[in-house]
Amino acid sequence: MNQTPGRGRVEIARFASTVLRDNPVGDPHERRVPVYLPPSYDTDSKRRFPVVFVLAGFTGRGRMLLNDGPWSPSIDDRMDARIASGAPETILVMPDCFTRFGGSQYVDSAATGRYETHLVEELVPWVDGAYRTLASREHRGIAGKSSGGFGALRLGMLHPRVFGALACHSGDMMFEYCYQVDFPKACSVLQRAGGVRRFLDAFEPRPQKAKDDMLTLNIVGMAACYSPERSAELGVGLPFDLTTGLPRPEVFQRWLTFDPLRMLPAHAEALRSLRLLYLDCGTQDEFHLHHGARAFTAELRRLGIAHTYEEFDDGHMNVSYRYDTSLPALARALSE
Amino acid sequence: MNQTPGRGRVEIARFASTVLRDNPVGDPHERRVPVYLPPSYDTDSKRRFPVVFVLAGFTGRGRMLLNDGPWSPSIDDRMDARIASGAPETILVMPDCFTRFGGSQYVDSAATGRYETHLVEELVPWVDGAYRTLASREHRGIAGKSSGGFGALRLGMLHPRVFGALACHSGDMMFEYCYQVDFPKACSVLQRAGGVRRFLDAFEPRPQKAKDDMLTLNIVGMAACYSPERSAELGVGLPFDLTTGLPRPEVFQRWLTFDPLRMLPAHAEALRSLRLLYLDCGTQDEFHLHHGARAFTAELRRLGIAHTYEEFDDGHMNVSYRYDTSLPALARALSE
Amino acid sequence: MNQTPGRGRVEIARFASTVLRDNPVGDPHERRVPVYLPPSYDTDSKRRFPVVFVLAGFTGRGRMLLNDGPWSPSIDDRMDARIASGAPETILVMPDCFTRFGGSQYVDSAATGRYETHLVEELVPWVDGAYRTLASREHRGIAGKSSGGFGALRLGMLHPRVFGALACHSGDMMFEYCYQVDFPKACSVLQRAGGVRRFLDAFEPRPQKAKDDMLTLNIVGMAACYSPERSAELGVGLPFDLTTGLPRPEVFQRWLTFDPLRMLPAHAEALRSLRLLYLDCGTQDEFHLHHGARAFTAELRRLGIAHTYEEFDDGHMNVSYRYDTSLPALARALSE
Amino acid sequence: MNQTPGRGRVEIARFASTVLRDNPVGDPHERRVPVYLPPSYDTDSKRRFPVVFVLAGFTGRGRMLLNDGPWSPSIDDRMDARIASGAPETILVMPDCFTRFGGSQYVDSAATGRYETHLVEELVPWVDGAYRTLASREHRGIAGKSSGGFGALRLGMLHPRVFGALACHSGDMMFEYCYQVDFPKACSVLQRAGGVRRFLDAFEPRPQKAKDDMLTLNIVGMAACYSPERSAELGVGLPFDLTTGLPRPEVFQRWLTFDPLRMLPAHAEALRSLRLLYLDCGTQDEFHLHHGARAFTAELRRLGIAHTYEEFDDGHMNVSYRYDTSLPALARALSE
Repeated sequence: MNQTPGRGRVEIARFASTVLRDNPVGDPHERRVPVYLPPSYDTDSKRRFPVVFVLAGFTGRGRMLLNDGPWSPSIDDRMDARIASGAPETILVMPDCFTRFGGSQYVDSAATGRYETHLVEELVPWVDGAYRTLASREHRGIAGKSSGGFGALRLGMLHPRVFGALACHSGDMMFEYCYQVDFPKACSVLQRAGGVRRFLDAFEPRPQKAKDDMLTLNIVGMAACYSPERSAELGVGLPFDLTTGLPRPEVFQRWLTFDPLRMLPAHAEALRSLRLLYLDCGTQDEFHLHHGARAFTAELRRLGIAHTYEEFDDGHMNVSYRYDTSLPALARALSE
Repeated sequence: MNQTPGRGRVEIARFASTVLRDNPVGDPHERRVPVYLPPSYDTDSKRRFPVVFVLAGFTGRGRMLLNDGPWSPSIDDRMDARIASGAPETILVMPDCFTRFGGSQYVDSAATGRYETHLVEELVPWVDGAYRTLASREHRGIAGKSSGGFGALRLGMLHPRVFGALACHSGDMMFEYCYQVDFPKACSVLQRAGGVRRFLDAFEPRPQKAKDDMLTLNIVGMAACYSPERSAELGVGLPFDLTTGLPRPEVFQRWLTFDPLRMLPAHAEALRSLRLLYLDCGTQDEFHLHHGARAFTAELRRLGIAHTYEEFDDGHMNVSYRYDTSLPALARALSE
Repeated sequence: MNQTPGRGRVEIARFASTVLRDNPVGDPHERRVPVYLPPSYDTDSKRRFPVVFVLAGFTGRGRMLLNDGPWSPSIDDRMDARIASGAPETILVMPDCFTRFGGSQYVDSAATGRYETHLVEELVPWVDGAYRTLASREHRGIAGKSSGGFGALRLGMLHPRVFGALACHSGDMMFEYCYQVDFPKACSVLQRAGGVRRFLDAFEPRPQKAKDDMLTLNIVGMAACYSPERSAELGVGLPFDLTTGLPRPEVFQRWLTFDPLRMLPAHAEALRSLRLLYLDCGTQDEFHLHHGARAFTAELRRLGIAHTYEEFDDGHMNVSYRYDTSLPALARALSE
Repeated sequence: MNQTPGRGRVEIARFASTVLRDNPVGDPHERRVPVYLPPSYDTDSKRRFPVVFVLAGFTGRGRMLLNDGPWSPSIDDRMDARIASGAPETILVMPDCFTRFGGSQYVDSAATGRYETHLVEELVPWVDGAYRTLASREHRGIAGKSSGGFGALRLGMLHPRVFGALACHSGDMMFEYCYQVDFPKACSVLQRAGGVRRFLDAFEPRPQKAKDDMLTLNIVGMAACYSPERSAELGVGLPFDLTTGLPRPEVFQRWLTFDPLRMLPAHAEALRSLRLLYLDCGTQDEFHLHHGARAFTAELRRLGIAHTYEEFDDGHMNVSYRYDTSLPALARALSE
């Protein structure tokens, strides 16, 4: 019904995950996974298509990529328009890896659940079975923005046999600059709230989320993903001591093992093997991610790893128009 | 595919309007109209259902009511949950009356197009033909928030044979307080831009919309809807003189004829005939609409017109949780 | 002790006013009045000097004109520098017309006290007696910014025999734009506070003044000055009804009689008689005063009244650097 | 002239410093130093008084402590009121250690000048010579807020023979939290400006200082004070690399040697010797200084060092009312 000649359509699949069942948070293991099928998918029933997994940012999930805005189209409308302008037809899969902590960073964590495994070992094969994909790494890409860009870049580095191209928009990296700066305020908020559990219990039902609370959720979420700690409240190892307020540098060291900037040297070959390695960042990124993007791509240049890097004159939010650039590029790279 | 036992489903219909064809703005006459069909719609193929037209606010269109948020569900998810909790099953129709000016206020205007006619004379009969509705005013309601609340309240007053119940959330009224306060700033912005056309031409492509620009679009949009003026640029009669900066009170007088507060006395009988007249507003509404809502309901009380009025401790934005209250109430009123 | 060759000095006189004694607010009738004496005042004990009364803005008093800032000198340092650059030597007098309501607008009001009379009939003769002034209107000017600019302009229109030149920086005028826009918010704040008295009682001791509270004090202050009302709480006739929230246009009409834009036609001759009529305003004035300044000076041009008008690319706050332009101009005009 | 029975008076002395002559920045070596003399100073010409040096915060200088505010008195009015309420009479000295970098942190630095030496070795003896002080450490205190609180605390630790009591309001400490968090933004601003010199050249004449620019000046200023570097532009060793954007942890290590929290262990005896060690901080300090104050006082407790610590429910700005508590306490301690 919502299909039109020249337009793709979106199915919102419901996927019951085995991996996420009994996750430590009590988050649902059944997820809605929107799948964009390009215009020819229904008209040419034998044809197979490349596929791009598009990862939402922190506090996001796949379905939000479909959100419509007055001057900012949903991702399916964007893809329709790009295809109408000549981009190769591609399937888009939009996983839901949201958690009570605001996100999963697409990693396996004892505090949140095994989202990396869910994505790579469950969703990828299921998509290949349920849809007419070109089911090989040469034709499978991964993309995302912010925490989704982090996820795309990290999973691309760790799973070169699964993903053959990636796009990272304004991705989390250089953690001193994008996370550490918020530790003092997050510490104050959590102290006032009386700990992680009480903070979350009070945060969730509030219709309006204050800026400082969002920032605190972000730090709590990162701690849940990067430094789970069995003995800590809700299993979240915080990078500061809630009693004294002092930094816990040993916890931040664990975070840094996830920093793409630190991961790069050990995964240079995986990056070198990609058909497309695309990064971009706004020059006024409020999380200072342009510093990280510049350092990351400087290292890529030093190592002679082919990539595309673009800076644009904007901040971190409301930049989904960048998909107009990256998705066609991925589609081309994955169609060859 | 996106249907599950106990859940409704959403169809995104494409409607080619005759009324909107050749509108003065050049906006599309074909619109996507999401229609929510409740759980029993597919399982009980003989049953007919009440229907509620839900009007989006300024800069919105029906499809945005489906937008998903991390802690704020889309309207279809909200309705599913309310029905699961015992609310009567109801069809929801979400018109798209967006224009280049940011909206239509659901009125007929020489500057924007005939959106009131489109809604009342085209969409209503089309819905009754295309879906198994209970096709009478007793079972047809209208609701909305902000400009959508204005639209619901005004159309309910003007078309009592069409709509038998209405809900107005934080609706535009008492125009001195909600609009007039922004005239000086809008005037400055338009003077700097060089007029309405140049303002819009520069505004549209900007990825980030500044606060003052949004405020200016709002005033331009209201002028386009309430005071079209053949000789003015783009047909928009501004409530101030762009050359001198002085107010044009005669234009604002035209606006006031649309103010629900001024319309009330002449339409008391229409309001009295409703099965449900529901209004609410946040006590900290940034557009000061609580003043209007209080004055409007004070007048209702004076006239002895039955209604429900609720105030809640919040502002104007991100209050779609109010639909959790109004939609079940409308569903009950329209199911009797 | 605080005098240096080439520098003027500041005396902070204490003036016990008869006019302000027993003012209705209980504000002190003894005031500190800083007087700037130029470099030659002490070295040339026979010389007489022109004098400029400089009026502080709302929530200000004369002494604040002496406030030092890291990149914005106090007014005495500014005057020293201008004189060093060739400006004629001039005495500056900085009255204190502060009230519990945040200011007096330099008018006589039954709710605040007789500040216009205090200034014109008490301070002017006292200054001529206490200091070696050139004691005639030809050598006596008045200047100010914001509410002080309003005061200078209004007193200049009303007392042409007292003041022979004036400078109005970003002065209050076109009251629809600079005041009326804040009525809805001020109404909400006062309703929540429980009236004018409770608002003030809670406001005063708070170490941090919230933006909305400042805005409300401004409206309360203007009401105290422009529309005193015997039967109202603290004698302040508000321009809206605190019970219903509705505007009281008859009160605003009283305000408009103080609007320099409305006063102009009846006082054209006074303005025409000035040796210097100087106005300026920032093009981004947050109180929208550039609209008023343009309308005022357009009318001056229409009437053929000589004046100087400058617009500068800035807002309303922190623009005391404009005195670097107006004070030398006044000094020259008053020295001829 | 500005003296009244029961009131003190302020002299603004001009002090020509030998130490500051030929400072590397080209800042003036002659400074205005306000001195508050208590009521009995003039009436009892034989009496000697304790003295407190009050240090202004970053971007401040002594004269700004005299700034008047509508609801926040100048420090001399505060002291008059406290003395009227029974506090011992005390002289207050307000040094001017402002620099082109926004301040000096009251330290000796090759990039700014020798402000610590100026204060301790020049101003202290000059005050004892020029005024009737009780000229010994038992009767000489030091106090300040923010960077002034840092200065008071640090100088109190380093010069126990000079100062016998100190008060530190919201003082800079725990530098990871109060400074490091602003490095990424300061780096971006400086990169865009084209380095430290161009940043300052553009910053100074701007009438309005943007928030990000102020933050950047703060980091530049701290670098000038804590990590002068001969080969760097203007001698300012930045804690990040302007070319790559990467942190320079070796520079930050130099900063940490100035952190009162790190200095404490080596200067415990000096602190123990004080007649009064007073600290306070707002619980919502925007620079997160409450974390530092808590850690500092926790260490004091651990070491058994007597002190007074107060937290108050406020932020970092506009808290000069805290002097109403600290100055009488210092006056009492220094009068015994």
